[in-house]
Amino acid sequence: MSVALLSIGTELLHGEIANSNAEWLGDQLASRGFDVTRIECVGDERAILATTLQRLIQENAFVLATGGLGPTTDDLTAEVAASVFGTHLALDEDALAAMRRKLEKAGRIVGAGHVKQAQLPVGAEILSNSVGSAPGFLLTRAESRAFFMPGVPREMRAIFEQHILPRMLPSGKNNAFRVVLHTYGAGESAVAERLSGLEAEHPGVLLGYRIKGPEVDVKVMARAADRAEARQLAEAAADDARIRLGGLFYGEGDDTLVSVVARALRSRGWSLAVAESCTGGLVAKELTQIPASDYFIGGTVTYRNAAKSGLLGVSEDTLRGHGAVSPEVAAEMAQGARRTFGSDVALAVTGIAGPTGATPDKPVGLVHWAVAHPGGTVVDQRVFSGDRNQVQQAACYAVLDELRRVCAAARVSRPSNRGLGPNG
Amino acid sequence: MSVALLSIGTELLHGEIANSNAEWLGDQLASRGFDVTRIECVGDERAILATTLQRLIQENAFVLATGGLGPTTDDLTAEVAASVFGTHLALDEDALAAMRRKLEKAGRIVGAGHVKQAQLPVGAEILSNSVGSAPGFLLTRAESRAFFMPGVPREMRAIFEQHILPRMLPSGKNNAFRVVLHTYGAGESAVAERLSGLEAEHPGVLLGYRIKGPEVDVKVMARAADRAEARQLAEAAADDARIRLGGLFYGEGDDTLVSVVARALRSRGWSLAVAESCTGGLVAKELTQIPASDYFIGGTVTYRNAAKSGLLGVSEDTLRGHGAVSPEVAAEMAQGARRTFGSDVALAVTGIAGPTGATPDKPVGLVHWAVAHPGGTVVDQRVFSGDRNQVQQAACYAVLDELRRVCAAARVSRPSNRGLGPNG
Repeated sequence: MSVALLSIGTELLHGEIANSNAEWLGDQLASRGFDVTRIECVGDERAILATTLQRLIQENAFVLATGGLGPTTDDLTAEVAASVFGTHLALDEDALAAMRRKLEKAGRIVGAGHVKQAQLPVGAEILSNSVGSAPGFLLTRAESRAFFMPGVPREMRAIFEQHILPRMLPSGKNNAFRVVLHTYGAGESAVAERLSGLEAEHPGVLLGYRIKGPEVDVKVMARAADRAEARQLAEAAADDARIRLGGLFYGEGDDTLVSVVARALRSRGWSLAVAESCTGGLVAKELTQIPASDYFIGGTVTYRNAAKSGLLGVSEDTLRGHGAVSPEVAAEMAQGARRTFGSDVALAVTGIAGPTGATPDKPVGLVHWAVAHPGGTVVDQRVFSGDRNQVQQAACYAVLDELRRVCAAARVSRPSNRGLGPNG
Repeated sequence: MSVALLSIGTELLHGEIANSNAEWLGDQLASRGFDVTRIECVGDERAILATTLQRLIQENAFVLATGGLGPTTDDLTAEVAASVFGTHLALDEDALAAMRRKLEKAGRIVGAGHVKQAQLPVGAEILSNSVGSAPGFLLTRAESRAFFMPGVPREMRAIFEQHILPRMLPSGKNNAFRVVLHTYGAGESAVAERLSGLEAEHPGVLLGYRIKGPEVDVKVMARAADRAEARQLAEAAADDARIRLGGLFYGEGDDTLVSVVARALRSRGWSLAVAESCTGGLVAKELTQIPASDYFIGGTVTYRNAAKSGLLGVSEDTLRGHGAVSPEVAAEMAQGARRTFGSDVALAVTGIAGPTGATPDKPVGLVHWAVAHPGGTVVDQRVFSGDRNQVQQAACYAVLDELRRVCAAARVSRPSNRGLGPNG
């Protein structure tokens, strides 16, 4: 059952907005075993839209179109769809009444734009829009069904989930299941290396890889007679994959490195502080993108040495002797942040994000980081490649992952860990 | 001269990566007056790729294809392109020699993948790749030219700029010019309101709007007999627009709010510190995404009241009397950061990013910010709507824009500003 996606809107052709709708729909459909054969994108032009729609209907079991259902005159989708399906537009009183009810609740009245949005193809099945004004609709011809949705992502997603997916699923194979494992700490080929042979041991399972910044996602996809069986296959293979990935695996599905770290800190009642230099606030920003006030006390960004000494108590001797970018300063920053903020754990990162600042023995990309915890202080370092923002991002991941490992080590053998020195 | 973009790769159909190449190319071409009529995206499948390419060549003067030139067997673009253009692949010795030179410099040797990438359509014009291994190529038939590029964005961009654009420009109308003005502080309709009538006063000029987070970009686009004349039209209209936009206008082209603020601080030799609460490090992170160590001293993220008092000297009376989210605390945070870091200017932001934390008189989204400068302290506040990250983003913009305005006021009347109190 092949599916084509059609995105309508001149702003997409001119690169003014990203085609995030097609990306989202492609993922939704592929993960359920549908065969997405093509994505097309055309502007708000009658002739091109009509011939494209015509061709896609002929070639595909499903066409999912987004955009061009707005209130202005350049929104042509309903009109063109009607003509391609040999029908015409007429005012849909039910759709208009639904809009009126929604508008009145918000203290607004029905305008000309709303009336236009209620002009829908006669014979279409109307797909109500629970979050916006323009409804979607379904037109059918022979073996082919074309769904039309507004281009506003929130509205598109609601209509897809409420109306379209339930109508498509019975036609789909619906025999696929996918588990997504998140890894950090190795490149795609090293991750694949660890999983080599896994597909052979789990017939029906296919592995896929996706690079997301410094992370590699492993998609464990299974197909079987039905979804329940596919799920069983995928989960058995995922269990196997987790073991092989070892410390590279940090979470799955909706987990992020930050959400995993937050969970680990909460589960042991540890509070956190951060001391940043080259990441310039990125670590704190990442930690606080989700609510964190129950464990996150605060942080410093200390660009100048005077700030490192003044706020964190980094010794001037250490700064002079080893330089600001050194394991010694990273450790003193973390220990200082732990003191200054009175936190259970503190992390620190200092490095050279570039493009300038390198010295003969300290290249751009060199980053030292430290995690000071109740059992001691862990320090580590690496030279990251890439531009300034890539080095900052990589350093942020490195120190958060170090924190994750410190927490994990404490979880496994908490009592014996107390009082251990560095690297404990 | 119509242009079609063709993106090749199954990962695009499954929503695994965003089609950023098409977005970038669409913008590049539209801004130069080319008529991008469609963007198509297909997977790595011979038959579908061949029929699609065939159709696009028939319908368009230019086809720009990206992807499928990699070293593995599922990269089929060169092979399919050759067959559609009635030719075949053969080893291109020059292309292989170029790859060998590049690889040897990096201490690597030519592998089977490289030899495959040097298998190019006989009769094609080869477009050298200055940043990667696979070259692009150009195939021509009758009135139509098809350019093929690797899918790696960096390589695609280099080949487009070095080889494709120079070949396309003479055929294009090349009679368009665009100025992009950046605004902050009002919504799209309010910005459009200020510019209403501008198109009528500047014939040949068209305005476009693009919402980028809390910013609205105004595109001033002109078409004329040639590019020089279009440029004159666009720049005259942009001058007019800048005046009408007043304080909403902050920069243009490659400017960002941060780069504009950085320039303003540097030009008056001011150093900066930041004190954040609800933005959690976002302001510092934004400031340090570009090199900032010459003016940025450091920052604090103080989530807990104890940290606000301890690091910034915010008075416990103020915290008790007004609460952490108050103009008084914002002002004391900024003044404290100025003291703690010894900076000329300091900014502070405190608020309720949500989703929890609201009180009967302090809703989610309430943000107070302050800028302490040599002439006094400016405070302001707003209730932002949206989710946690949108509130954080909006608060970050608000305080950076306040800093921009403080700098601008100091520029205009620097001596008289000294010693002024709040809001001076």
